[in-house]
Amino acid sequence: MNLEPGTWNGERRTVVTRLIIAASETDANLFYATRFLAPDAFVFVLTPTGEKVLLMSDLEVDRARAQAAVDTVLPIRHFEERAKASGVERPGILDSVCAFLAEREIRTVRVPGSFPIEYGDGLRERGVAVQVRREPFFEERLLKTADEVEAISRAMQRTEAAMGAAIGAIREAEVHDGVLRWRGTTLTAERVRRLISMTLIEDGLLAQHTIVACGEAGCDPHNEGSGPLRAGQSIIIDIFPRDEASRYFADITRTVVKGRASDMLRKMYWAVAAGQERVFALLRDGSDGEAIHRDVQATLERHGFQSGEVNGRMQGFFHGTGHGLGLEVHELPRISKLPTILGSGNVVTVEPGLYYPGIGGVRIEDVVVVTETGYTNLTRYPKELEV
Amino acid sequence: MNLEPGTWNGERRTVVTRLIIAASETDANLFYATRFLAPDAFVFVLTPTGEKVLLMSDLEVDRARAQAAVDTVLPIRHFEERAKASGVERPGILDSVCAFLAEREIRTVRVPGSFPIEYGDGLRERGVAVQVRREPFFEERLLKTADEVEAISRAMQRTEAAMGAAIGAIREAEVHDGVLRWRGTTLTAERVRRLISMTLIEDGLLAQHTIVACGEAGCDPHNEGSGPLRAGQSIIIDIFPRDEASRYFADITRTVVKGRASDMLRKMYWAVAAGQERVFALLRDGSDGEAIHRDVQATLERHGFQSGEVNGRMQGFFHGTGHGLGLEVHELPRISKLPTILGSGNVVTVEPGLYYPGIGGVRIEDVVVVTETGYTNLTRYPKELEV
Repeated sequence: MNLEPGTWNGERRTVVTRLIIAASETDANLFYATRFLAPDAFVFVLTPTGEKVLLMSDLEVDRARAQAAVDTVLPIRHFEERAKASGVERPGILDSVCAFLAEREIRTVRVPGSFPIEYGDGLRERGVAVQVRREPFFEERLLKTADEVEAISRAMQRTEAAMGAAIGAIREAEVHDGVLRWRGTTLTAERVRRLISMTLIEDGLLAQHTIVACGEAGCDPHNEGSGPLRAGQSIIIDIFPRDEASRYFADITRTVVKGRASDMLRKMYWAVAAGQERVFALLRDGSDGEAIHRDVQATLERHGFQSGEVNGRMQGFFHGTGHGLGLEVHELPRISKLPTILGSGNVVTVEPGLYYPGIGGVRIEDVVVVTETGYTNLTRYPKELEV
Repeated sequence: MNLEPGTWNGERRTVVTRLIIAASETDANLFYATRFLAPDAFVFVLTPTGEKVLLMSDLEVDRARAQAAVDTVLPIRHFEERAKASGVERPGILDSVCAFLAEREIRTVRVPGSFPIEYGDGLRERGVAVQVRREPFFEERLLKTADEVEAISRAMQRTEAAMGAAIGAIREAEVHDGVLRWRGTTLTAERVRRLISMTLIEDGLLAQHTIVACGEAGCDPHNEGSGPLRAGQSIIIDIFPRDEASRYFADITRTVVKGRASDMLRKMYWAVAAGQERVFALLRDGSDGEAIHRDVQATLERHGFQSGEVNGRMQGFFHGTGHGLGLEVHELPRISKLPTILGSGNVVTVEPGLYYPGIGGVRIEDVVVVTETGYTNLTRYPKELEV
């Protein structure tokens, strides 16, 4: 795939060489561009003619040749030798990169904002002009292809099965002195989390930091939750695993109460659901993410829920309405207080929430694809508060 | 913990403020310094007086106050407001950081080599001097405390249990037409990998990219392996999970053959084991990592095993002898062709290997702590080729 081709109309447009030095295990742009997964840093160059080149260590060169979706795989050792021949006593990775760039007569490179400053400074010291391109480094990453939507959708289906296992256990549980018991022992956040992880592993998905937050723990949106689950309190379950085969993420949140929910929790749940519906009403190609976020805030306020700092602690609705989902669990575009125009092919979460210490937290999260006229919801799991 | 205290001997030594902006989920230095885990980027400052300060989003500020091992947690919003008051229309994270640095009269910061160039350039544009410190950013991270060794050792014990489950299945398997069958169905690399993952999840460890590589797949050290396992071929099992509670990694490799190994595989196994023994003989506080690596190469050659490129493909021994292990699966120090002096408290893997297309791969890996007079092996799992 030629990500930024030069165009020919009488004379060649100037296109800048792109450079990434990273481990694709932790750098989504690099995995996106190469579809090659490696735990240690390697060198990726996209030349002005659209040629994708990898410079690989001896350890990875064969595997890269077999697996990477690139045009050329070269052993970095060859350029190390060249650097040594030209007088560098102990050539490092940058000397090898510069030997390659010199061979191709490349003097300017464009790197992602996350490019290590150590490498950026080092390239500049060696006379290479380094331009920094903030995210999105590859704009195409924001517009999911049919294959990418399919990968996310498959991950969502399996994640919903894990949500079903978790909520099923809460539903089946008995209540003793306000505490949930399931299959003979106390049902804790840790136990539900393990149940979710095991269900997902069976399907090849890896969940980390799954949230099963009951009562007060749920008032802090990133608290993973611990200890016994209790009846009558809101339990937020937020699962965002990666499909190990495709590397794409799923993301879903449901909030349930075992037994009867208080009027206040029910009112919060309706408000959050109404906030989500407002997003669905506004979302389409060209809609304004910041305006959608403000609308959700206004909707929650209309339902009587104020947001802000109380006694030095944030309460109400104090996170973004949604975020892009793909090879990263949080990626562009955001639906938040930052200006963003949404486009057909964006895959985003829609996840308003309300959090009040002393009462509890409520969050509902679906994943949708933005379309020309609206959206397609990739989430099927029902929304019900009391189980 | 004061990581780089100023000293007082008549006058104060100049100590530079350290700055990290990263997600501690993916930045081991930041987790090391704060013991606070967050999926999105936040700001860490270590002042010359040893004060650790975090600037946190509204979403994380309360959790950081409750969980982070730092002195001061401030809402970044306050500095965003200050930047706005001083005329920045839409303050970004760097404007807030600069407002904080200005308040503390800090004009120079030291950042890790991995610091995003986008932030480094941005700080320099705003008049902050940025010094880059290559790894190790925190030298103390290389010298594991007793608690850290304990965390790695616990992770190792559980990982050895998973190794036992994997090798146990291979041992129990029956052979039909050269293919392993276990409990009624074909024993594949994927099935053994799942067995390992499930065993580890039960113990709170998360394994990724576990290698179960049989025959030709084992000749590529990073090939994860797939398909049916076969008798008479070497099977490399390399497990390197993270303990989700402590965030420390374990790492172990064993190579087994179901049934009888060929003379050549047995000879390779002895050579690799002899290479490992050479490391154990040489390893101690002050020993030279590069010299150890060369000694392993020479040992393998003495056993008759040459290394190098044959028909454009690397074979023999073509990776490092070992690497540091801790909050990252690959960290400093390395035992490789790069010069390194090892020190008491380093935790490193010892993992020579041999790989010959058409024959197979053999790798044996233990994890040890370097001590004053030698080493302590944190690995107990027996080494036997035929099972």
